[in-house]
Amino acid sequence: MSFNNEIDSVSILPLGGIGEIGKNMMVIEIDDEILIIDAGIKFPTDELYGVDYVIPDISYLLKNRDRIQGIALTHGHMDHIGALPYVLKKLGDVPIYGTKLTLGLLRGKLEEHNLLSDTYLRHVYPGHSVEIGSFDVEFIRVNHSLSDTCALAVHTPSGPIVYASDFKFDQTPVDGQMADIHRLAELGDEGVLALFSDSTNAEHEGFTRSEKEVGETIEKAFKDAEQKIIVASFASNFHRIQQVIDAAMQFNRKIALSGRSMLNNVDIAKDLGYLDIPEGILIDTNDVDKYPSDKVVLLTTGSQGEPMAALTRIARGDHYHISVGDGDTVLVSATAIPGNAKAVGHTINQLFERGADVIYEAITGVHVSGHASQEELKLMLNLTRPQYFFPVHGEYRHLHLHAKLAQEVGVPQENTFIPDLGDKVHLSKDRAYIEDSVRAGRILVDGLGVGDVGNVVLRDRRLLSENGILMVVVTIDNDGNILAGPDIITRGFVYVRESGDLINDATQKAEEALRECEEQGITEWSTLKSNIRDALDDYIYHRTKRNPMILPIIMEV
Amino acid sequence: MSFNNEIDSVSILPLGGIGEIGKNMMVIEIDDEILIIDAGIKFPTDELYGVDYVIPDISYLLKNRDRIQGIALTHGHMDHIGALPYVLKKLGDVPIYGTKLTLGLLRGKLEEHNLLSDTYLRHVYPGHSVEIGSFDVEFIRVNHSLSDTCALAVHTPSGPIVYASDFKFDQTPVDGQMADIHRLAELGDEGVLALFSDSTNAEHEGFTRSEKEVGETIEKAFKDAEQKIIVASFASNFHRIQQVIDAAMQFNRKIALSGRSMLNNVDIAKDLGYLDIPEGILIDTNDVDKYPSDKVVLLTTGSQGEPMAALTRIARGDHYHISVGDGDTVLVSATAIPGNAKAVGHTINQLFERGADVIYEAITGVHVSGHASQEELKLMLNLTRPQYFFPVHGEYRHLHLHAKLAQEVGVPQENTFIPDLGDKVHLSKDRAYIEDSVRAGRILVDGLGVGDVGNVVLRDRRLLSENGILMVVVTIDNDGNILAGPDIITRGFVYVRESGDLINDATQKAEEALRECEEQGITEWSTLKSNIRDALDDYIYHRTKRNPMILPIIMEV
Repeated sequence: MSFNNEIDSVSILPLGGIGEIGKNMMVIEIDDEILIIDAGIKFPTDELYGVDYVIPDISYLLKNRDRIQGIALTHGHMDHIGALPYVLKKLGDVPIYGTKLTLGLLRGKLEEHNLLSDTYLRHVYPGHSVEIGSFDVEFIRVNHSLSDTCALAVHTPSGPIVYASDFKFDQTPVDGQMADIHRLAELGDEGVLALFSDSTNAEHEGFTRSEKEVGETIEKAFKDAEQKIIVASFASNFHRIQQVIDAAMQFNRKIALSGRSMLNNVDIAKDLGYLDIPEGILIDTNDVDKYPSDKVVLLTTGSQGEPMAALTRIARGDHYHISVGDGDTVLVSATAIPGNAKAVGHTINQLFERGADVIYEAITGVHVSGHASQEELKLMLNLTRPQYFFPVHGEYRHLHLHAKLAQEVGVPQENTFIPDLGDKVHLSKDRAYIEDSVRAGRILVDGLGVGDVGNVVLRDRRLLSENGILMVVVTIDNDGNILAGPDIITRGFVYVRESGDLINDATQKAEEALRECEEQGITEWSTLKSNIRDALDDYIYHRTKRNPMILPIIMEV
Repeated sequence: MSFNNEIDSVSILPLGGIGEIGKNMMVIEIDDEILIIDAGIKFPTDELYGVDYVIPDISYLLKNRDRIQGIALTHGHMDHIGALPYVLKKLGDVPIYGTKLTLGLLRGKLEEHNLLSDTYLRHVYPGHSVEIGSFDVEFIRVNHSLSDTCALAVHTPSGPIVYASDFKFDQTPVDGQMADIHRLAELGDEGVLALFSDSTNAEHEGFTRSEKEVGETIEKAFKDAEQKIIVASFASNFHRIQQVIDAAMQFNRKIALSGRSMLNNVDIAKDLGYLDIPEGILIDTNDVDKYPSDKVVLLTTGSQGEPMAALTRIARGDHYHISVGDGDTVLVSATAIPGNAKAVGHTINQLFERGADVIYEAITGVHVSGHASQEELKLMLNLTRPQYFFPVHGEYRHLHLHAKLAQEVGVPQENTFIPDLGDKVHLSKDRAYIEDSVRAGRILVDGLGVGDVGNVVLRDRRLLSENGILMVVVTIDNDGNILAGPDIITRGFVYVRESGDLINDATQKAEEALRECEEQGITEWSTLKSNIRDALDDYIYHRTKRNPMILPIIMEV
């Protein structure tokens, strides 16, 4: 290791991924050097109307740009790499380190943002280490729903910091590549300073089942299927995709791929050797109809009920050339992420209505999680025997339950930390404490705008979504005489044909309010507007028990 | 029974509750008489922006008003009785039949709508029958999360129609009142013409656990609790509430009730004898602080993360006098209804953050469902041995799985029906077929408006919610000369302070569009508006990758 002074100062600083699932980003500092682990996005919750992504606030990194040595990536899921385009645009060219597949998936994202040629990407094999500035960073293979996922060990003078997010222990992995439990045990013997561990499934008892079990379900479904088979899966779960390919081979079916991310990802994984696709098995989606229905499989996106994804369109009956009907088999090989349950349920309803036999999450074995359950979390703790423990990658209840698990296996409560985002925690063999608190939080991305949507805009979108908008437009002259209007225009409020009286009466109320202002000699626009608003607010609520946004607009000629 | 001609014509007609969970309503016709079973609301899904409730379209009943004999109710949940105020306003005074508690809960709803005095309510004991017109309707006790729930047997010349929604079989019910499996078996021996059965849990294997198990979890939690206890539960689950009261007695704690529906419902159930509340155990919420924290329980609403419910406010820290902190115990004794998972999760996160020990659905035994699982559904089928089977109370996938269960226990596939809403199905011993299809569907209730929000309004609310609105206001004279504007005003689009340039440039684009119209002699408003809209649509999307609603407003002086 390159830091070797006994009084080296070590600290960690989470910028995302604590108290939330998504936008994972951790900062490790030793002396004056900064290492960043992961830079992910979070998908917006419902109350973030119209927001596309949420990314971490990196103000701290911008202020300390010259101390940053590099970014190390655990794996290629969007909640770990998705914010890199935004981060790199702000920070300039910071070198990036990850396994081959992680970087393969990242390349596409960087290309979309014209950042690929300017970014230094260095690939690291699982089981190997790399020097990033003075940091000695070791990549340790773990299992996950994405191949080539690693935990990272950052070696410090006080012992390694192990960052294990995301992971599970699959005792019978599809690709034969077990998590490197031997190395984790060695690190535990050496004396791990701190463990950061994946809390996603801290609510789940027992062990997460092996990906191989899904293979058995797929095989059985293929065996029973008499017509077309459609499999919907996450486009980055290459073990799952490989098992579909294997089943297709076994039952002599061709495979058509559908969905942009499915096509892109399969291309990347095939090129890099993470998928074994026999020659001639892939056919074009346009050619599906040229084969007998019992000779084809469609492998598609849409397992989350996304409105524009292929499976959703097939279920709705508006896919341009794939239909589904009596005798067809659909495997929805995924679980609905919270928030998507209704959309997924709706898609499954529609598929059943079209006569398909749908195998979905109500049926055991059609999906397994990529995250460790309670027994695996305890195993990770027992392997690494950390001095300090930080549950990460979870909402607060997951972190809290994970902290309790740590205490069950012997980590003292006072050595378990759930810092807030922005809390800089000093770590040494003697003690750990919050030494500082820096700016951290979320930045909203909407279209091309990064950070230009905030609470006011969101509040307005919420109000508009609930009861629409009612505009009162009036043109006045210099002296405040009304020249035209007031006219009332509404959107999202009420059927116009149902609202004739209501709008007429409301217009009259606006006129009265204006007349009163005139009589009282009020010409100040803000007062005119607030009088109109007050008069209509009351009136409209009384008549309809609704609260549309009321917006007076005054034009002066 | 009162119909006894061999050629009596029997048909059923679902107006709600098929292909959906909610707004249950079934019509049974024999000869010229109509019987209605249940009249429920459905809570709106996310895409129904701002809608409060969804109710069934009862056009068919309005047209056939004079043939309606009455409405029989299975139980008092809102998805079975909630639409009655709207239905009665349209149909006038139709007599209503239900068990004591069902009518008790209904009374409050009717009172809110000033309908109580004009409505004939007749209470029927479980195990008894009632004549409704010529219909002979038998109320048969079943188990459910609401006391006094019944299945209905409508006796026809071709055998009874059994309508069992909602139900479960609880072998150890809290109140000792088992479902009347003996009577169901007798009807099966007699020869049931058709069974309508609850499909809510058709995805769930095995048996639904007994409510008594929740009592054990509650007792254990009370035993372990060292400080204040807060229990959140559905306000109508009186068995659950009774078990909380019993535990409070056992551990010598006072109970404060919080939440309007909790207070109302407990009052009703106590008055009618469905809750046994020992003298002196209830205290006012305002007095909670007067007792030691290990001597009180707060029983509250908010188990679904509803924004204004007591538990949600306590978790947020803005309840007017109940706080929660280190050492307190919170039982969230419910499961999150799909769509509420995020809100419930958020509340639980906040409770953990405040230091409470939270016992919630990740922990077994804190809640059981009120609906039958697969083995109970098969038991109902085997008890009643129906000639025809209609799975009800479910989305399509639930209905489909339930139909498969029926086939497993021997109902021929051709005797299993999943009609669409509005399909009138003729039933006789010989055959069953769809004889007609009538208008049916959904009516949206928003505030006081019933049916005045439709697809256009919803589409606008969706657009507004995603990217807000951009208004372009311009005042012109008779000849089309611009007198004032164009001015651009936005809401929910972008931070104003971030958008200076954008709005200036967009204003210029609008001016250009208007000038072009002027040069081309275009004065027609619709063309002016569409030119402004086109110019801005492109420009705004190009600059921001967002699509606000663009609304040109022209005032003529």
